[in-house]
Amino acid sequence: MQDDLKARLCDAVDAGFDRQIEFLSELTSHPSTRGNEQSAQNFMADELSVRGYEIDRWQIDVAEIENLPGFSPVIGPYDDAVNVVGTHRSNTQKGRSLILNGHIDVVPEGPLDMWDTPPFEPRVEGGWLYGRGGGDMKAGLASNLFALDALRACGFAPAGDVHFQSVVEEECTGNGALACLARGYKADAVLIPEPFSEHLVTAQLGVIWFQVHLKGRPTHVAYVGSGANAIEAAFPLIKALHDMEHRWNAAENRPDDYAHMDHALNLNVGKIEGGDWTSSVPAWSVFDVRMAIFPGQSIEAAKAEIEEVILDAARDNDFLRNSLPEIVYHGFHAEGYALSQDSSERAISAIEMLDRAHQAATGQELVREAITATTDARFFGLYADTPALVYGPRAEAIHGFNERVELESIRRITKATAMFIADWCDVEEI
Amino acid sequence: MQDDLKARLCDAVDAGFDRQIEFLSELTSHPSTRGNEQSAQNFMADELSVRGYEIDRWQIDVAEIENLPGFSPVIGPYDDAVNVVGTHRSNTQKGRSLILNGHIDVVPEGPLDMWDTPPFEPRVEGGWLYGRGGGDMKAGLASNLFALDALRACGFAPAGDVHFQSVVEEECTGNGALACLARGYKADAVLIPEPFSEHLVTAQLGVIWFQVHLKGRPTHVAYVGSGANAIEAAFPLIKALHDMEHRWNAAENRPDDYAHMDHALNLNVGKIEGGDWTSSVPAWSVFDVRMAIFPGQSIEAAKAEIEEVILDAARDNDFLRNSLPEIVYHGFHAEGYALSQDSSERAISAIEMLDRAHQAATGQELVREAITATTDARFFGLYADTPALVYGPRAEAIHGFNERVELESIRRITKATAMFIADWCDVEEI
Repeated sequence: MQDDLKARLCDAVDAGFDRQIEFLSELTSHPSTRGNEQSAQNFMADELSVRGYEIDRWQIDVAEIENLPGFSPVIGPYDDAVNVVGTHRSNTQKGRSLILNGHIDVVPEGPLDMWDTPPFEPRVEGGWLYGRGGGDMKAGLASNLFALDALRACGFAPAGDVHFQSVVEEECTGNGALACLARGYKADAVLIPEPFSEHLVTAQLGVIWFQVHLKGRPTHVAYVGSGANAIEAAFPLIKALHDMEHRWNAAENRPDDYAHMDHALNLNVGKIEGGDWTSSVPAWSVFDVRMAIFPGQSIEAAKAEIEEVILDAARDNDFLRNSLPEIVYHGFHAEGYALSQDSSERAISAIEMLDRAHQAATGQELVREAITATTDARFFGLYADTPALVYGPRAEAIHGFNERVELESIRRITKATAMFIADWCDVEEI
Repeated sequence: MQDDLKARLCDAVDAGFDRQIEFLSELTSHPSTRGNEQSAQNFMADELSVRGYEIDRWQIDVAEIENLPGFSPVIGPYDDAVNVVGTHRSNTQKGRSLILNGHIDVVPEGPLDMWDTPPFEPRVEGGWLYGRGGGDMKAGLASNLFALDALRACGFAPAGDVHFQSVVEEECTGNGALACLARGYKADAVLIPEPFSEHLVTAQLGVIWFQVHLKGRPTHVAYVGSGANAIEAAFPLIKALHDMEHRWNAAENRPDDYAHMDHALNLNVGKIEGGDWTSSVPAWSVFDVRMAIFPGQSIEAAKAEIEEVILDAARDNDFLRNSLPEIVYHGFHAEGYALSQDSSERAISAIEMLDRAHQAATGQELVREAITATTDARFFGLYADTPALVYGPRAEAIHGFNERVELESIRRITKATAMFIADWCDVEEI
């Protein structure tokens, strides 16, 4: 790519940047938690449509994906789980195709009083945009869209097909991205601007979600000593799971990408509920766990060990021995994925091109990083033989309070993305 | 009382017993959990009204009771907290007055799948009536009512005023009984047929309810090691509370009524809730605790120690040190009460008369028992100088699943109650 085009693309990103942040603010104001993504998806579809992209909008059909590799057990109905894809068709088809992927769903905002300002009333302050989902990952969706806009502002379109994907379900199953695969969307590479500080993600962990249900047959608290309480019976199970977490993190179990990390695999007790009445010994409790696994670690083997750990701990407990816990899987069945292990020519050249674009946008070397989370990249990398580049802006407190994303970082990522598109797909005149 | 009247009262109870169990079944079918007592109270008011009792029915006004001794902090609004009292006025006033008290509220039924048959569809099987609240304490309300019916069937009425009280809020605050006191209901003695196996309750514990609220500022689970999780941060606090429970139960702290019990004071973590998303480190949790205290133990001192224990444990925790838990009181502030300490002539003679009635109904000595729960007896005993006799039928699994009450025990208690009324109040012809 010529230096002249690089400069023009960067200028175009700068020229459109105020509008881009306005777009991001509006997108972030849609409270698109699971089940509530519709208004945000309407907004995305409208924005893609006015730009002339071909719109595909469909409700995920579990029956179409449940037997595919990578499927995760579903939480609740999918009545309102709608994906949106906008497609650019190249006239010349002289270049490579590309998927620009991002997820529209955001995690719950948590207690409102822990936010300095309301989570779905985004605000810009001190060079950061604050709001739930602003970083994870609506800034990425905005970057994808405005990078394409920058090409257009320069009189160009990608010289290969580009599918702009706005998917649901990234935060709990990945079934939104999987549904895009099932619908036939393929490309020579994928870019997913998840907020990892302008680093290229070379490896990501797998994630398993499970629920543990405890039940018992207690009575009035007046007649019960310790040990027969379905809430407190959960505590030794959680301890046993943490012991398992430490074993899994042992140095001998780490693949190369994670060899330097003492504790890459985090076990999180994310939710708990139990009991109905303060003066009744609780008859039930349920807790929800997220556990990570390394790339290459088998989900089935991990599940078997999780079950063994829980049931062994339960058998040590007088209360649980006769009423063993039930383990329910209800979300992520996500394998790990390592771009670093993809030695294909496509992967190598995609990374080289992203590296050049990054350097042109930032003046810095592209840092490569193994992350301790999962992303939708695994679907493309593992199940569609497509190199998946996860590369997005700097954000802070994602999944936390006062989630924020840095504006200048969004600007740099958008420029790098525009240059990467132009390089990877080549360009054709509009 | 003449043996002839005793026999006639027992016969009258037998003659009405089928109707009594029908009444109890219908009463038990009303799901009168907190906030849902209205239909059961309507039923009680109708039954009292058709028998000619003077009906007093009123909504509890917090402003009228909140400064009285024995008041407990309120859970939620009292829009539908309605007491019902039916009063018999004696024509002769030659005898003593009596309050027959029972509570209409029942504790939540818990998971339906743990009941063999639905909790609010009472059934009789093998000599027991099954259903939530059948034992605790609708059988007692039925016994009070049908004992009076038995007198009437013999052509008599009590020769002193009798107030039949059907109160709410016994299971969480006792504010229903307190509101009866505030409304001016007084008598020479009180009988409360709580289901304690036909024993006379000589002492009951106090109970304190409190909620512990934990908060933190966590983020995506990918970035968090152990120790910063608002759910798991609760565990050491609960352990510290159990340590306190063991100290309070130490032999040197027990009053005489409880000297023989190693563990009269039970601490119950009855409810817990926390977290919003499996892959977000939980930012909050709340757990609800019931703790008992001995008669004579100060509520204020107990609360101060509870708070100190929680805050000390929190200060030992890296996560909580900078965000100390909030302790909220939202239910029982109940002192203990010991009838055994009431050396008044009224108490002694009431107990003697109940003992005689019990022996006549059962052929057994009256067993005296210190219980590990609380009842509304404390309001009469502590704040109205009125001996409160807690004496009711045998029940099992109260607050549990398949709660049940023994029919023959109800029969015996009803007979004993009828004879006690006739003895305590004396009788007059209708």
